[in-house]
Amino acid sequence: MRAKLDGWKDTIVAIATPPGIGAIAIIRISGSNALPIADQLFLSKKISEQSSHTLHLGLITYQGEVIDEVVMSLFKAPRSYTGEDIIEISCHGSPFLQQKILESVIALGARIAKPGEFTLRAFLNGKMDLTQAEAVADLIASNSEAAKNTALKTMRGGFSHQLKEIRETLLAFSSLMELELDFSEEDVEFADRSALLKLLEFAEQTIHELLHSFQLGNVIKNGVLVAIIGKPNAGKSTLLNNLLNENRALVSDIAGTTRDTIEEVIHIGGIAFRIMDTAGLRHSNDTIESMGVEKSYEKLRIADLVIYLFDLTQENKNSIINTIEELKKENPSVLFCGNKMDHFGQGELKNYFSSLPLLMISAKQGQHIEALKEAMQQRILNGEINTENTIITNARHFESLQKAYDSILEIRKSIETNIPGDLIVPDIRNCLFYLGEITGEITHDEQLDFIFSKFCIGK
Amino acid sequence: MRAKLDGWKDTIVAIATPPGIGAIAIIRISGSNALPIADQLFLSKKISEQSSHTLHLGLITYQGEVIDEVVMSLFKAPRSYTGEDIIEISCHGSPFLQQKILESVIALGARIAKPGEFTLRAFLNGKMDLTQAEAVADLIASNSEAAKNTALKTMRGGFSHQLKEIRETLLAFSSLMELELDFSEEDVEFADRSALLKLLEFAEQTIHELLHSFQLGNVIKNGVLVAIIGKPNAGKSTLLNNLLNENRALVSDIAGTTRDTIEEVIHIGGIAFRIMDTAGLRHSNDTIESMGVEKSYEKLRIADLVIYLFDLTQENKNSIINTIEELKKENPSVLFCGNKMDHFGQGELKNYFSSLPLLMISAKQGQHIEALKEAMQQRILNGEINTENTIITNARHFESLQKAYDSILEIRKSIETNIPGDLIVPDIRNCLFYLGEITGEITHDEQLDFIFSKFCIGK
Repeated sequence: MRAKLDGWKDTIVAIATPPGIGAIAIIRISGSNALPIADQLFLSKKISEQSSHTLHLGLITYQGEVIDEVVMSLFKAPRSYTGEDIIEISCHGSPFLQQKILESVIALGARIAKPGEFTLRAFLNGKMDLTQAEAVADLIASNSEAAKNTALKTMRGGFSHQLKEIRETLLAFSSLMELELDFSEEDVEFADRSALLKLLEFAEQTIHELLHSFQLGNVIKNGVLVAIIGKPNAGKSTLLNNLLNENRALVSDIAGTTRDTIEEVIHIGGIAFRIMDTAGLRHSNDTIESMGVEKSYEKLRIADLVIYLFDLTQENKNSIINTIEELKKENPSVLFCGNKMDHFGQGELKNYFSSLPLLMISAKQGQHIEALKEAMQQRILNGEINTENTIITNARHFESLQKAYDSILEIRKSIETNIPGDLIVPDIRNCLFYLGEITGEITHDEQLDFIFSKFCIGK
Repeated sequence: MRAKLDGWKDTIVAIATPPGIGAIAIIRISGSNALPIADQLFLSKKISEQSSHTLHLGLITYQGEVIDEVVMSLFKAPRSYTGEDIIEISCHGSPFLQQKILESVIALGARIAKPGEFTLRAFLNGKMDLTQAEAVADLIASNSEAAKNTALKTMRGGFSHQLKEIRETLLAFSSLMELELDFSEEDVEFADRSALLKLLEFAEQTIHELLHSFQLGNVIKNGVLVAIIGKPNAGKSTLLNNLLNENRALVSDIAGTTRDTIEEVIHIGGIAFRIMDTAGLRHSNDTIESMGVEKSYEKLRIADLVIYLFDLTQENKNSIINTIEELKKENPSVLFCGNKMDHFGQGELKNYFSSLPLLMISAKQGQHIEALKEAMQQRILNGEINTENTIITNARHFESLQKAYDSILEIRKSIETNIPGDLIVPDIRNCLFYLGEITGEITHDEQLDFIFSKFCIGK
């Protein structure tokens, strides 16, 4: 039931490295014509006659003109990413040169690859299933430890092994039940109902856990949207700088990753915390008063996590209690912090603010910042990040799993109420369909187009 | 006399592909520790025991954590770009992953490479001379056919062969002359003066040609700065669009190459023509009148080539002659065009505008646009672009060649006036020094630092 996309047997080419100037750029060619094209471009030796997984230095020429000195990588089918012959041309990283080489390859009969088309071919050629293919895109988009680990795990097989097992066993049961139909007058049961129930129980639990992991998966994939709010001079920007200074080096070293965003990203325990609109936080008086109550409340509502800072030197117990009660109505996930604890003695703090649900910190002196980070992580993850459980991050998988789950409940109910096999088979088929959709045993062209259109070019 | 830079024997690492997200990114490691580091990262097999020029798929792990599935390229010394052991890690193109791998390699003992440091090592290890190394940077920066061809020619040996020959012969003469000093009382001449004169003549001519080529080389490397000016509604933006529509596809397809500039680039005959401030040309009334005379005159002065458009429907012979005379004082390189020729019959054009040095065009109808492009090319190149001569594009080379040339004239004069050998030798040494500076037989650390600091990271 694999999809048959038009034209997926021709030869495709794309620039696989990021756009712009660099030391090296890679032009990737895949398909039955990759080797003949390489032979025509490369004069130093016959590429097609070399062994797979070898590197070759030489000049690329087209129509008598030398284009560049390059290194060609050769991967022969089926030992390649796509399962087809692949040539990777490593050229000097001038965009002009990249384009020249690309145009020559096209002139020799290849066509520009669509986004994700190399990975689509890997899927169509059976090199990976659909969840693995989708994880490739997630891996490339990953920007935190946890997102990377989750994508890598899925790419390497992840939960599709589990689903495959369930699907195959279920398929066997369904065949046996269909056989029963042929002998319906004899009232035999080839399919062992109690064994089936056991399988369904296992499937139900597995899928339930996967569905449950989706919320966490979403946090891992997209990061946690954080708003730091508080009155003027509560110390919001000082806190932000303190959080950033220790954590941002990794991100800010990579050109272009943060420049265009209005968020600052910090990593705590491998999770990306995206702090909203911090340019504003640092350069203007971003307060309930000056921005208008409405805008601050909007932030409160869209944030996954709010850090509310009280300036302890300006507040008393009652004003704090009132604010806390009011804010909790807007967003249940607020971390309340009492800032400027360094202005008080140990005894004073207790006297003035005892029994309040506040995390005492000093943004300026860096006191209890680690505890705050710990609290941020706990509030979001409830400790789940460290489990070795499989985590799903993909909304498409979530939807199909949800449907598979529903049909499993349906099948269980039918068996438990002794409904005849011929009435159960359609539900089993539904369940098989939804499970097959996830790993790609069942696909439609439009669905594949949609999935792979979100990839980057060259992958 | 090669420079001895500190620490150039340690192992260096850099991301060699452009910054940002792509399908693939390359992390490049070079040095004596490249293979041991690869062995520690790569668990699937022992990279150091594999043959040179081979590719290996596997997982990269650091401190027990799987970082990515990658392809490793192995180039063993001396068969590599730098002449040292080189490992190139082709990973998934997430900036986060790139950084993770980079950090692991650094943790295992490599250090971040300085800009151009891989090429610097190629030079220090005798894989290329200095002109070839400099051409690598030019090739990566090349954005036109001509610039690419010139850089590639220099990178592949180019004029350093010629200079080497001159330098070696001159060195032989200088040795013979120094020998004469030992026998100075006997009045012998080991160095054949007429043969030396012949060599000097050849050197003088060769270097003269190279010096002469620099102006063209500059045009090739940097493109030609063009200003299109004229009164309002003369058809400037229409002409620009007409020129762009046919020529820009190649450039505009490459993300990021033109976005930040205030120029539009068109290619004519392999040369880049950079048309100034065209955003303004297209969206505002960019005229002498509206911008003020001063600003238009400034453009006239800095442009390599000016296209002045007359609206033939608004001008008469006298007004045109006056404008031409005035403008020629400011910039001798003006192409005068009469636009909107389609408003006139063949006879009318002749009657009204005969004998004027105008190229008649219609920007709107696309008439004579090819002739205009031809004229632009001719005006800049005088047909020289098609010669197979060596072209120098580098100001450093120009300076050293100029000094070498001066000392050759000095030597010739000395020989022709029969000045004794011991007084000529210092001039020959000077000449040898300047020639050696170009190809890098003579270098100073500061000079190398300066040259390679202009490279991109990872090359």
